[in-house]
Amino acid sequence: MSNGCWIWYPGDFELYHAMVQNFSRVERGYGWPAFWKSEGFRNRVVFWKIYTLEEETEFCVCSKATGHVLVGEKKYPFGTRIVCGPGRWKISIHAGRIEEFPSVFVKGDVIYSDADWYAEDYANAPVKAGCSRYFTDETREPSRWDYSEQIYEPVHIEPCLDGVLYEFETELTAVLEVQDKRGYRPLVLSCGESREEALDPQHCYYSWTPDPETGRCPRCAVRYVYIAGCRPEELTLRAIHQYVDIPVRAKFSCSDERLNKIWQVAEHTFRLCSGIFFVDGIKRDKWIWGGDAYQSFFVNRYLMADADINRRTLLALRGNDPMTTHINTILDYTLYWVLGIKAHFETFGDLEFLESVYPRMCSLMDFCESQLDENGFIVGRKGDWIFIDWADLDKEGALCAEQILFAECYHTLAVVSRVLGADEKGYQRKYDDLRKKIDRFYWSDEKGAYIDSFRSGRNYVSRQSNLFAVLFQIADDGKKALIVENVIHNDRIPRIMTPYFKFFEMEALCRMGYLDEVLAQIRDYWGGMLDRGAVTFWEEYDPNVSAEEQYDMYGDKFGKSLCHAWSASPIYLLARYFVGMEIIDPVKEEYRIRPHLERFKYLECTLPVGRKNVHIVWDGEKLCVEERKDDDEGKGHT
Amino acid sequence: MSNGCWIWYPGDFELYHAMVQNFSRVERGYGWPAFWKSEGFRNRVVFWKIYTLEEETEFCVCSKATGHVLVGEKKYPFGTRIVCGPGRWKISIHAGRIEEFPSVFVKGDVIYSDADWYAEDYANAPVKAGCSRYFTDETREPSRWDYSEQIYEPVHIEPCLDGVLYEFETELTAVLEVQDKRGYRPLVLSCGESREEALDPQHCYYSWTPDPETGRCPRCAVRYVYIAGCRPEELTLRAIHQYVDIPVRAKFSCSDERLNKIWQVAEHTFRLCSGIFFVDGIKRDKWIWGGDAYQSFFVNRYLMADADINRRTLLALRGNDPMTTHINTILDYTLYWVLGIKAHFETFGDLEFLESVYPRMCSLMDFCESQLDENGFIVGRKGDWIFIDWADLDKEGALCAEQILFAECYHTLAVVSRVLGADEKGYQRKYDDLRKKIDRFYWSDEKGAYIDSFRSGRNYVSRQSNLFAVLFQIADDGKKALIVENVIHNDRIPRIMTPYFKFFEMEALCRMGYLDEVLAQIRDYWGGMLDRGAVTFWEEYDPNVSAEEQYDMYGDKFGKSLCHAWSASPIYLLARYFVGMEIIDPVKEEYRIRPHLERFKYLECTLPVGRKNVHIVWDGEKLCVEERKDDDEGKGHT
Repeated sequence: MSNGCWIWYPGDFELYHAMVQNFSRVERGYGWPAFWKSEGFRNRVVFWKIYTLEEETEFCVCSKATGHVLVGEKKYPFGTRIVCGPGRWKISIHAGRIEEFPSVFVKGDVIYSDADWYAEDYANAPVKAGCSRYFTDETREPSRWDYSEQIYEPVHIEPCLDGVLYEFETELTAVLEVQDKRGYRPLVLSCGESREEALDPQHCYYSWTPDPETGRCPRCAVRYVYIAGCRPEELTLRAIHQYVDIPVRAKFSCSDERLNKIWQVAEHTFRLCSGIFFVDGIKRDKWIWGGDAYQSFFVNRYLMADADINRRTLLALRGNDPMTTHINTILDYTLYWVLGIKAHFETFGDLEFLESVYPRMCSLMDFCESQLDENGFIVGRKGDWIFIDWADLDKEGALCAEQILFAECYHTLAVVSRVLGADEKGYQRKYDDLRKKIDRFYWSDEKGAYIDSFRSGRNYVSRQSNLFAVLFQIADDGKKALIVENVIHNDRIPRIMTPYFKFFEMEALCRMGYLDEVLAQIRDYWGGMLDRGAVTFWEEYDPNVSAEEQYDMYGDKFGKSLCHAWSASPIYLLARYFVGMEIIDPVKEEYRIRPHLERFKYLECTLPVGRKNVHIVWDGEKLCVEERKDDDEGKGHT
Repeated sequence: MSNGCWIWYPGDFELYHAMVQNFSRVERGYGWPAFWKSEGFRNRVVFWKIYTLEEETEFCVCSKATGHVLVGEKKYPFGTRIVCGPGRWKISIHAGRIEEFPSVFVKGDVIYSDADWYAEDYANAPVKAGCSRYFTDETREPSRWDYSEQIYEPVHIEPCLDGVLYEFETELTAVLEVQDKRGYRPLVLSCGESREEALDPQHCYYSWTPDPETGRCPRCAVRYVYIAGCRPEELTLRAIHQYVDIPVRAKFSCSDERLNKIWQVAEHTFRLCSGIFFVDGIKRDKWIWGGDAYQSFFVNRYLMADADINRRTLLALRGNDPMTTHINTILDYTLYWVLGIKAHFETFGDLEFLESVYPRMCSLMDFCESQLDENGFIVGRKGDWIFIDWADLDKEGALCAEQILFAECYHTLAVVSRVLGADEKGYQRKYDDLRKKIDRFYWSDEKGAYIDSFRSGRNYVSRQSNLFAVLFQIADDGKKALIVENVIHNDRIPRIMTPYFKFFEMEALCRMGYLDEVLAQIRDYWGGMLDRGAVTFWEEYDPNVSAEEQYDMYGDKFGKSLCHAWSASPIYLLARYFVGMEIIDPVKEEYRIRPHLERFKYLECTLPVGRKNVHIVWDGEKLCVEERKDDDEGKGHT
């Protein structure tokens, strides 16, 4: 009896592990659980499936929940051998659990748990059960995620101050393990993403005293470790890097070594931030943010092409219906969730997932429509956060950038409704109306640009609103030309200062054909971090800030996250706009390559499309494209 | 530093412990968690209070949650000594917890946690924190309820079959503890509410093998224990009765010994079913049911007058907004929740609680109004349970009894809205309309009675609908007279067979002055159970069923609960209608006594009204009433 996998009410796995993730932030000894509504999993569920059995068969149900198995009219405890058949039998598993989400594993030759079972929660119609390729082993319960592990020894050890400084080859998410040859002492391990942080035990984020039994510290982000009051020969330190093993399918190398390095560091940054979910950073916040995740979907498309992490992240962010608060409390992050579904569908053609979340897409739009102002524009309620970017925007009244995102959500819903053959609910008309209204209320002929807000009367022009107008096709060609002149190439408009919004900026520039400018920015901005010794890309980078202050953020000396997913966008930009790979039909694995490689003497890369890995070689004169099945032999064509 | 109590988000304590309670049912080795939507507690909350401090003071926060204390701009871990002041300080405690509801204990001379703190859950406006008089000790976490304990030795031990049968003096909710003089053996303890059940190891509900370390079994309902394969002298068995110590404030004795015994057995039954919540029974289901709890509120009024258990039960039943399913899946049980609030308010004048639940009363009515039929009558949706009683009612289409309860809910909301000075939202008008419609659609001139349903065309007349019409003042005096003639005193109308609906029947008879009939029924029906050896009152009793089949219910040989709260109603009936005690104003502790004691030679009782205990003595000629403060000296008047 070896068939079967763990099943649960769909979404519960994600809601549970999202809480574990979002409550895992620790700073200088205190916990900092994410400051938004945390959505519970279900505590009481039923799983069932109807079998028509040719002959008698036996099965067994494993679960830590409280409950029983109902076969016809007869109830059995979990863990007992149950014989049933032949004939038509409904097998129901009743399960209640408080501290974790209820899950069950049914093993048998004929009767076993899989994605074909139904789940009910006493509030909604039956749905297909949730499961995961990571939880097919009866002994591995889905409430505990067992990370893959790799041991790292320090690459550099030096006496420092009154102790020892250890350096690992790169940044890790690791359990540190120390062996003290002198026997147990309550050592304090000061961790740092930078050498400076580790050497500042007072201000570093993570300080641990190893467990006396195991010598181990809790898993955390670490590159440097400083241990005071000891000498190098007294200790052995190693790092057990713990990660979710999502294979990288892309490869990239070109004639520009700086770009190669940027790709490698972006890849390492992105892999570290790709755990059970896409998180913002590995030292801080370790939280699942909707805006950050949205950008990760695009990098994932070209780097790992892993649909599961997208689905887990989207389910974790959205929570249950009815929706009562914005995702991460941020209005724009709610809207990115809808756009994220679109990005996911465009990558994977994941119709089953689309169908399962469509009702929540609609109810999200209903929720948003409950907070429109007198002009029909979406605005924040008390406690809602209007983010868009870390920048001085004119946020009085309805914000232009939010309306553009909201319009794009209507557009997405119109498209998705058509794909699913669902009632279109007027989304297309609402999209058309809102587009027109955005132009009417926010376009300033005087400025030749979109303004952030019309309420204040300031007519403030930011890059952010205008970049969105370009990206989400609100601006027509005439307006685009004006935006380029009056905003994008206008030095008096404040620059984008976060890698986060750099993603949108670079993409808008690519769309309008300013590829040289983008390539220069990638080399300068991301390359600038390399010049400062970065082994992962940072949450924020300002070339004008001195080396002494470069780790400072939020008024905190080491507040900046040095490994932040939203900095990995060069992967997307290079793949999408320079190699020019665009997925046309993910189900049929159809793609189009419109390369812009004239800037490269040589470039070779592999990019995933469905189960295919597309190998592309540019030798400076001609492009050679070869397709291979993932983990399979190649078959080429030029 | 000794001030302070545990605080939590209000309702979380109840939702958590309700799940523990509702998932505690065990039958013959398998768990049976309650089959309705189980509502989770909050996982991420903030507690805060603003202090204006005269001078510097210190405090400390205890919690098992993940989080920190925010004092002004500075964060501290839990468990550290924090100094602050003088001046104005906001103290915020951020807490996240997955497996249990987050709770914190702040101890200090000036800064300490109590009901004056606020709680937030990132979804709603701040509310006052929840707390309990049971959790004022820092070491006693509110996620674990420590029961009071009393040791019982068996009163009778006899060799029986091939083992030993132990009998305790009455039914208990106990942890059995066995000492085996021969050393550890895997004994099997078969428990029974009846001798017959204990002696039937195959069909008894609870069979335990004691823990090898402690010799103890899980807490369960037990009066008899049978242990096979041993002799009396080999073992020592005792029962550790575990209970919630809610003092009984009433006393009752009279010249009728049968009534005295009925009161005692009803009191014992009721106390056993009054734990953290009012549950239906202690062997089965051990669940919190809205209809059962509704009746318990009336018995509690006269027996224990404990407001806390009412509040806990009401909060556990209702769950969070938005409401998406009926309480216990039962339409009528949803409606009893509203009427239960009224009963609670009439007993305790608990304005603070009324204010806190009023929004949920209104949203419950909104939820109900979302399921009206074309005539404006409330009907069940798919999966809703229309219960009313274990009886053959005509349940096709909208049911008369449900409309009467719904009308009474409108009436309650109209009254409560006025009490709170809230917008009345048309409840009074809706009440008046629905009353008229009930008469128009359900009163049959031909039958001289209300019919259950007009949809079926059967014009079926039940006691249930007509008793409700009397009780809830739908029927005018003319109709009442017809109902008495055509229904109540009509032997062709099927009799009430459950002690549950007997409560409503007896109360309606009392209201109409049929006190002799009620007294006879109490003596016959409840007395009939005593004649069969009952030490607690049963879930169901049919005098015509043979002794061999008397424990049978739901097609299960020992399926009947022999200790069921809904059988304790004689306490209410005797106090309310024979002693004639009616609370007029619970806040002012005003009451009225309209005795009907002419049937008694002698009666002496104490009944609680607010903090007063009212001592009433009837010597066959005159009534003497004396008031005492609870736990205080008496001051009398005649």
